Amino acid sequence: VAAKFFQALGNAGINVRAIAQGSSERNISSVIDGNQATRALRAVHSSFYLSHQTLSIGVIGSGLIGATLLDQLHQQAERLRKDFHIDLRVRGILTSKNMCLGEPQIDLRHWRDPLKAGTKPDWEKFLAHIQPDHLPHSVLVDATASDELPERYAGWLEKGFHLVTPNKKGNSGTLEMYRTLQKVARAHNRHYLYATTVGAGLPVINTLRDLVQTGDEVRSIEGVLSGTLSFIFNSFNAQKKFSEIVREARQKGYTEPDPREDLSGMDVARKLVILAREMGLPLELKNIEVENLVGERARGGSVDEWLSRLPEEDGAMEALRTKAASANECLRYVGSIQPGGKSAVQLRHIPKDQPFATLSHSDNMVIFRTARYHQQPLIVRGPGAGPEVTAAGVFADLLRLTAYLGGKA
Amino acid sequence: VAAKFFQALGNAGINVRAIAQGSSERNISSVIDGNQATRALRAVHSSFYLSHQTLSIGVIGSGLIGATLLDQLHQQAERLRKDFHIDLRVRGILTSKNMCLGEPQIDLRHWRDPLKAGTKPDWEKFLAHIQPDHLPHSVLVDATASDELPERYAGWLEKGFHLVTPNKKGNSGTLEMYRTLQKVARAHNRHYLYATTVGAGLPVINTLRDLVQTGDEVRSIEGVLSGTLSFIFNSFNAQKKFSEIVREARQKGYTEPDPREDLSGMDVARKLVILAREMGLPLELKNIEVENLVGERARGGSVDEWLSRLPEEDGAMEALRTKAASANECLRYVGSIQPGGKSAVQLRHIPKDQPFATLSHSDNMVIFRTARYHQQPLIVRGPGAGPEVTAAGVFADLLRLTAYLGGKA
Repeated sequence: VAAKFFQALGNAGINVRAIAQGSSERNISSVIDGNQATRALRAVHSSFYLSHQTLSIGVIGSGLIGATLLDQLHQQAERLRKDFHIDLRVRGILTSKNMCLGEPQIDLRHWRDPLKAGTKPDWEKFLAHIQPDHLPHSVLVDATASDELPERYAGWLEKGFHLVTPNKKGNSGTLEMYRTLQKVARAHNRHYLYATTVGAGLPVINTLRDLVQTGDEVRSIEGVLSGTLSFIFNSFNAQKKFSEIVREARQKGYTEPDPREDLSGMDVARKLVILAREMGLPLELKNIEVENLVGERARGGSVDEWLSRLPEEDGAMEALRTKAASANECLRYVGSIQPGGKSAVQLRHIPKDQPFATLSHSDNMVIFRTARYHQQPLIVRGPGAGPEVTAAGVFADLLRLTAYLGGKA
Repeated sequence: VAAKFFQALGNAGINVRAIAQGSSERNISSVIDGNQATRALRAVHSSFYLSHQTLSIGVIGSGLIGATLLDQLHQQAERLRKDFHIDLRVRGILTSKNMCLGEPQIDLRHWRDPLKAGTKPDWEKFLAHIQPDHLPHSVLVDATASDELPERYAGWLEKGFHLVTPNKKGNSGTLEMYRTLQKVARAHNRHYLYATTVGAGLPVINTLRDLVQTGDEVRSIEGVLSGTLSFIFNSFNAQKKFSEIVREARQKGYTEPDPREDLSGMDVARKLVILAREMGLPLELKNIEVENLVGERARGGSVDEWLSRLPEEDGAMEALRTKAASANECLRYVGSIQPGGKSAVQLRHIPKDQPFATLSHSDNMVIFRTARYHQQPLIVRGPGAGPEVTAAGVFADLLRLTAYLGGKA
């Protein structure tokens, strides 16, 4: 009992001034700072299951992923409280334009209007509100694709926030930044979780981590890591011109507003960098050989201009396709890492009986070949993008965080 | 600092009699029982990274999986200690015939001879040795396929052991036993991890758990869950008779000594029961409709007798195969769960362009269809049996346990 008591106070970061236990071992007294009383009581209660494991959450960004996450959290809140004694409280939402805070939390039935009517974003106020005296654990969710926010991550971890994000920019930035984030999280005993940065909700990063940590030797990772490029090449056949498929993908909302961002291969390269670093390879983005599917002359100018001239490429792409088809192969845009070898993103000819050739729709596929998975690889396949599955992956990271903090989902 | 101190003592189960913190907040004094001094010091040190996160491990069973796990632990021990401050100490090995204990741990360079020369198994002694006063966390690994050991699991959890196992028998026994184990683990704040009971090292159970816990609605799970039956039907073609393939599989060691145990479908049914229960379905083994591939008259008698008469089945199996082939389909032995529908294990005709049809060798494949993965399913594929990948999965569970206990791999 005493053990559980101390564990609870410790986990919650309570400063205990003095403690005494009766000889009967049936009572414990502790002296703590007055302003930490609520927090202490809550921590002790929750550890004895009188109350709940509470997480104070700040969500940054209310775009597709952020909004979907907020809705998913709302839908599951009661079940998690009732069945698992987990209390996930969104206390703040911050976007580039607005901020809204809630006490004791934001009512997630109606977060859109309060956010619209909210104040201007104020980081200091936001962070203080997500990390109040009376709650033991605080986490920030960066649900944006911002280039700038990752610069703040280390500071947040140092301040005591845990961090969950689907934003690739932090881990695929400089190697120095990647290492700093890992180091700062470890030094401050905070968790930095980013399972959704590759393959969204698919079990890619956590699978790789299990392999690496248990000492498996990863011999190669190959992946179709862009839903957009998967769709484009899975759909490319004798009946359809390349430029038509790109237009179709854009109309369906599968591409970035400017499809050249997908076709450049940089998004795939960023995912490769993250996987490589999780394997312990000291890779920078520039070390990856990237086959840019946008010709050099086509990289400037407006999207419409580019799309109108895209049919000029149809001949060359069709030649590639028929050459592959005549060898019973198909085209796939594949990223690959080989420790000690080169890491590349390129359009490859894949024999029809190989796993990548069986892809359809906009599925991702990752193939792990290791010392233990040598005869046959370990393969994960499925939709690797989209707000529903990405938000669900972020949600799963939040629950993993709860488990690391002593909760049991 | 004080917080970390209390957390460490609490996690380690130390009874603190009295504590005082200096007003400078640079020193903390605590009064504890003399016999807990080492344990307390170790716990506090390890929390400040002066020492290591230590796990006291007892391995039960030294068959293929147990032996491989011990060797893997040995190979990784130094790296885990150095890079991750994780100290995984195997302090005891117990088999049906022998037991060996080590202080401070068993030297895993040479565990085979000491085990052979060990004493008779003595459970009381074994458990006491795995849970010594001076170490904070103890875990038992049931690396057997025993029917009887799972009866002891609840008692172990109650005594304060964590539990990791690839043994399917506990979770696929009675629903009552499954629920008791979940309940006891939760009530005693102990972890019961069994990711390897379905698909060995493949990310199947943890993926399902993420889906369920984040509120996804699982609409169906289908799986080729037996490496043996996968091999048999993946190899079945016009050139080979069914009985020849069964013999070949047995010679390669892919089957149980009596292949009828694989062909009965019971192993697949057990895995289905585990998946169903993880989805929250109150299923008993008897609720699963199982197509037994061994004819009723063939179930008795010796293996050799049965094998010698197996060619009598070739005609019927070949008729099934050609019927499928003529419809551009192939045969696969598939288990499926549909909440609200029936759960079954059966030989199915699979169209050639469907994922199961692309299987080769002895790969497993699990297909999750959910509310979020509805257009395209989430698919995991790869070797789902074998000592290397199963032991690695158990190893990964041990590292997950370390993370839940505050360590950071």
